[in-house]
Amino acid sequence: MPELRRDPITRRWAIIATERALRPKEFRRTHAAPAGANDPFAAGHEHLTPPEIHAVRPAGGRPNDSTWRIRVVPNKYPALRIEGDLEKRPEGIYDQMNGVGAHEVIIESPDPDFALHRLPHDHLVEVLGVYRDRMADLQGDQRFEFALLFRNHGAEAGASIAHGHAQLIALPVVPSHVQELLDGARRYYEFRERNVFADILRQEVTDGRRLVHDNGDFVTLAPYASRTPFELWIVPRFQATRFEQATAPQLEKLAESLRFALDRLDRGLGDPAYNFIIQSAPYGHDDVPWYRWHLQIVPKLTEVAGFEWGTGFYINPTAPEEAAEFLRSLPGPD
Amino acid sequence: MPELRRDPITRRWAIIATERALRPKEFRRTHAAPAGANDPFAAGHEHLTPPEIHAVRPAGGRPNDSTWRIRVVPNKYPALRIEGDLEKRPEGIYDQMNGVGAHEVIIESPDPDFALHRLPHDHLVEVLGVYRDRMADLQGDQRFEFALLFRNHGAEAGASIAHGHAQLIALPVVPSHVQELLDGARRYYEFRERNVFADILRQEVTDGRRLVHDNGDFVTLAPYASRTPFELWIVPRFQATRFEQATAPQLEKLAESLRFALDRLDRGLGDPAYNFIIQSAPYGHDDVPWYRWHLQIVPKLTEVAGFEWGTGFYINPTAPEEAAEFLRSLPGPD
Repeated sequence: MPELRRDPITRRWAIIATERALRPKEFRRTHAAPAGANDPFAAGHEHLTPPEIHAVRPAGGRPNDSTWRIRVVPNKYPALRIEGDLEKRPEGIYDQMNGVGAHEVIIESPDPDFALHRLPHDHLVEVLGVYRDRMADLQGDQRFEFALLFRNHGAEAGASIAHGHAQLIALPVVPSHVQELLDGARRYYEFRERNVFADILRQEVTDGRRLVHDNGDFVTLAPYASRTPFELWIVPRFQATRFEQATAPQLEKLAESLRFALDRLDRGLGDPAYNFIIQSAPYGHDDVPWYRWHLQIVPKLTEVAGFEWGTGFYINPTAPEEAAEFLRSLPGPD
Repeated sequence: MPELRRDPITRRWAIIATERALRPKEFRRTHAAPAGANDPFAAGHEHLTPPEIHAVRPAGGRPNDSTWRIRVVPNKYPALRIEGDLEKRPEGIYDQMNGVGAHEVIIESPDPDFALHRLPHDHLVEVLGVYRDRMADLQGDQRFEFALLFRNHGAEAGASIAHGHAQLIALPVVPSHVQELLDGARRYYEFRERNVFADILRQEVTDGRRLVHDNGDFVTLAPYASRTPFELWIVPRFQATRFEQATAPQLEKLAESLRFALDRLDRGLGDPAYNFIIQSAPYGHDDVPWYRWHLQIVPKLTEVAGFEWGTGFYINPTAPEEAAEFLRSLPGPD
């Protein structure tokens, strides 16, 4: 059983993921990503994953057959396990919790070489719908307080399997980083009586220097205090606290914005590794006027080094104004 | 001039380091570390760095000659600049500050291929003394509130020059991560009336499962909520808030502990990339009963991925008990 362990000083949690245990000797070799005949996410290889939780396939198909377009399976080596009750217990001065949670993998296409931003529009919209529906589904489990949808692209960004996929982790606690976001947004709202995301959009759209794309419903920008080169945020122009509240027309527009951003990063920087995360409010925070869900894209172009570990400050060698200008000025097509 | 920019939501700072600006096209190629004739840190290449701030050399040597054993120079591409006054100003809804600070490089040996843990004992003690003295020296500058001494070893850990070196950055603000450490330690002290570091040592020495080394003055342990595989902390058994307070006999013992830890990581894991940081209290916090300086070693064996970005939680696939047992059981010599 994985364990959630709390640092007694900062009170941040770490997941000791015993299910994916790496033995000391394993660090000596490079982990080659399975591909070809060993690709567990390719069509026809359904037996290499646990049975599916959900899939999108044409009428007439059957669970776990190879006719799917999008497939959701439990992570074979989960960081957290769905079974069991939450149990908090002390270990001397420390706090520990059972590693109860959900860890799902969303395979967005059976093609081993697909790129998310080159999927047909309808397929990409379907993908975003599956993201949304899986997050909504896990809300039914009373043990979970928060879920994160994220995507690691490229080995440098932590992807251990080359075949593209997103992941969903539901947690029995609200992570302190998420609480900081909420608290920060609330403080801003209490002080200024305005939503900080609305204020950011107002300034960025007027200013224009950090603006990358705007389709009327979503604004894509390089944030003012970007932590890494080419960090991008896709922020809704409308107020909504949780990603699960997104409507079908909104997902159509989000697909457009996401495609634009990932395509320009791919063409401009030569298919960089990246992480993207959907920063949604915790379960139960359905209508919080100070927070707004958004999507963050963090390309992996520099290494996290000692200074970042010791301070939480990031040193970013590329000004967001320059990153935005570069991405804006790339030629289409988008 | 570099800029410190504050995220309007989390209020965390990012350094937009214009002095080391990376243009978009530069991300396409790998940054080969200079070596051989281009190694700026080798003896005889003193002209490739800015003039030295400090050096340890035999009697008769002169500043910037090649007789040094340890040499401190300003970073040629500093994240922050020493010149100028602190100036905070708004940029619309955002906060900005001049990037005033110090950024020094400590070259611990003129040998291009040296390993810190294979330096002779007296040399390593001298190195720790230079770390301490540089941190103490910058305290005299009233503009600085905090300094971090850190070392990036290996390209995966962010080292851009292969010749080993440590770095020192002094900041005009206390980073929120450091404030969290202090606040967390204070809360523990107020609640339990005991120092959290003393309590950790008491439990770890008794328990023994996460213990790596103990020389009477310093305890080396794999922390209970380790963020990464083989994270190690070297914690003084005596109470001291800031690293600059370390005495000569204490540095002798610290050299012993540091050598033991780095040597075992090197032999056990095949010279992994790592960051180490000295977590000292901010300037002015000389006698805070709840905090204690310590050294953290964070090997770079896994990648920071989307889940970590989105939650601040780390997923660690190696239990600290297993890491400690592996390092303890390696054969000597140490």
